[in-house]
Amino acid sequence: MDRQDSGLAFMLRYENVAWYDAGEVRILDRRVYPAKVAFVVCRTHGEVARAIADMVTQSAGPYAAAAMGMALAAWECREKPAAAQRAFMAAASETLSHARPTTVSRMKLVTQGCLEAALAAIDRGGDAVRAVMDHAVAANELRYGRIARTAEYLADLLPDDGAVMTQCFGETIVGQMLKVARRRGKKLRIFCPETRPYFQGARLTATVCRDMGFDVTVITDNMPAWVMQREHIDVFTSAADAITLDGHVVNKIGTLQIAIAAKYMGIPYFVTGAPDPGHPDANSVKIELRDPEFVLQAMGVRTAAEGVKGYYPSFDVTPPHLVSGVVTDGGVFSPYDLKRYFEGRDMDDPAFRAICV
Amino acid sequence: MDRQDSGLAFMLRYENVAWYDAGEVRILDRRVYPAKVAFVVCRTHGEVARAIADMVTQSAGPYAAAAMGMALAAWECREKPAAAQRAFMAAASETLSHARPTTVSRMKLVTQGCLEAALAAIDRGGDAVRAVMDHAVAANELRYGRIARTAEYLADLLPDDGAVMTQCFGETIVGQMLKVARRRGKKLRIFCPETRPYFQGARLTATVCRDMGFDVTVITDNMPAWVMQREHIDVFTSAADAITLDGHVVNKIGTLQIAIAAKYMGIPYFVTGAPDPGHPDANSVKIELRDPEFVLQAMGVRTAAEGVKGYYPSFDVTPPHLVSGVVTDGGVFSPYDLKRYFEGRDMDDPAFRAICV
Repeated sequence: MDRQDSGLAFMLRYENVAWYDAGEVRILDRRVYPAKVAFVVCRTHGEVARAIADMVTQSAGPYAAAAMGMALAAWECREKPAAAQRAFMAAASETLSHARPTTVSRMKLVTQGCLEAALAAIDRGGDAVRAVMDHAVAANELRYGRIARTAEYLADLLPDDGAVMTQCFGETIVGQMLKVARRRGKKLRIFCPETRPYFQGARLTATVCRDMGFDVTVITDNMPAWVMQREHIDVFTSAADAITLDGHVVNKIGTLQIAIAAKYMGIPYFVTGAPDPGHPDANSVKIELRDPEFVLQAMGVRTAAEGVKGYYPSFDVTPPHLVSGVVTDGGVFSPYDLKRYFEGRDMDDPAFRAICV
Repeated sequence: MDRQDSGLAFMLRYENVAWYDAGEVRILDRRVYPAKVAFVVCRTHGEVARAIADMVTQSAGPYAAAAMGMALAAWECREKPAAAQRAFMAAASETLSHARPTTVSRMKLVTQGCLEAALAAIDRGGDAVRAVMDHAVAANELRYGRIARTAEYLADLLPDDGAVMTQCFGETIVGQMLKVARRRGKKLRIFCPETRPYFQGARLTATVCRDMGFDVTVITDNMPAWVMQREHIDVFTSAADAITLDGHVVNKIGTLQIAIAAKYMGIPYFVTGAPDPGHPDANSVKIELRDPEFVLQAMGVRTAAEGVKGYYPSFDVTPPHLVSGVVTDGGVFSPYDLKRYFEGRDMDDPAFRAICV
């Protein structure tokens, strides 16, 4: 078996972002990766929430970190009476799920699943830490199953020999997509916009593409339209931080602009992920505004003069008429037909809830 | 008189990019400005050409540097016989005008004007260095006259109270535009995309806006579309490295993408500059591809992992149907009607030739 086929192995390889062990959560510091492999060590779940807010981990990383934060919370309160443990865990679920405003809805699916596992263990006098970890690993396997199925549908939409543009593409789905593409013998050139101000495209997406053995080129964020035209891009694809039920894609700032350029150039845009039951429409999504000073530097070096302001919306919203298809574990949907995704699914089934992350 | 009204004073303040004196050309190193004010000192015109190729100066800076390089060439060959001086100066004009491939046509207008001044001085046994300097200063005054007239027409198109987006906007025209806007009492918020990989927008354009007393905000290059929508941008404007006679705008990479977004958002795009008689159409423009390694760093710090490729086209081409108007010293033209710009002008008139730069 390809070791990539194990979700956990894949996570440890590509998303080795957060792991609970012996009263500590260690989070890979993606702010400096791949130049440096360093870890932020958290000794309380509050520190984990702060690390998520401070962008220590990104892409799918915050979900893993939040689950590990719940395990840490269970460890923190292990000597309290059962009632106090229950209250402590419920509060931890709130703290961790609200670490970043745009992803609260999805984060809650993670932390509430962990919370339920912990409460069940507390009720039966069992080991709540172990219960959270077992739940997190199982949920992660379910998530990888979903992503693997999504990757198969996405690969159907890629050329056999052509060029793909990404945007700040979560390493899990991009890695799975490339694994399927490799198995099918597809010859792809990947173009990754660098994704300022954190350079996730240059640092994370491009590194995964390289590790998977594909031809990968980083461009700056002002180049996508020109590169689409000059390098004959066949497909633009990204993941999403949220897909609203009415087909709006909330994703890393810049996605809207590339989607507009793709539409102009006649290039399809496929987004991966499941529609989000917590977001009926775009108005239900709070776009996080981060510290504006951060756009006035690059890799820690100041760019602009004093007295110049910055502006830093983390995400933008791409309307459904710019989206060619929403690629899910259940197939490819029109952004105008997302409610059909839920047909025949049990919203309380843990497998389904893991799928929604 | 506002000291800004003197083109030379303005140049020394904002474009103090290149000056010949006593066998040396000193060029302001815009690669580190405004964090540091440092100068590259050239002792041959070949060093000046190399400095231009190495992006020591940008925007309108290379034109000033090339003229100063011609003065330096006259100094270098001052002790040769007249025939050798003539040949040396002609060769210097070629070397300097070809320093960057995309701007050869405009650069030739600069260096050939200097060459003619030098040759006339050599013929009459005069001081060729002085002749080139006198010519360069006079041509610069003519250029500022053109830019001041252009700025008046551009200001007509700006809101009285609103928001303007720029792209890597030459400090001369942006400074003049803001001077006119200030005089007319316009209240403008300026949004400057940072313009990777050199950050000219963050470092140069934004600094001029701040110095001129306007509210200025730097954004990363993936934000323009979202900021247009969220911050209600009224106008997008840029200068151009070349405007072809059939209405294509060759400008800093990213201009195309912002112009596409502006069209999508219903925001007009006005480009400043004169159509270029050396470029009948977009096919006549060579797009400079620079060292791809440069996009894999930011402010000197490596971003991507080893084994990841870069791609670095310096410019892109925006087609006329995305251009709302070409703002010249003779008024605002449709991009489809640029030949009319030349009506009644004497192409051999030095004033006109300075105007074309």
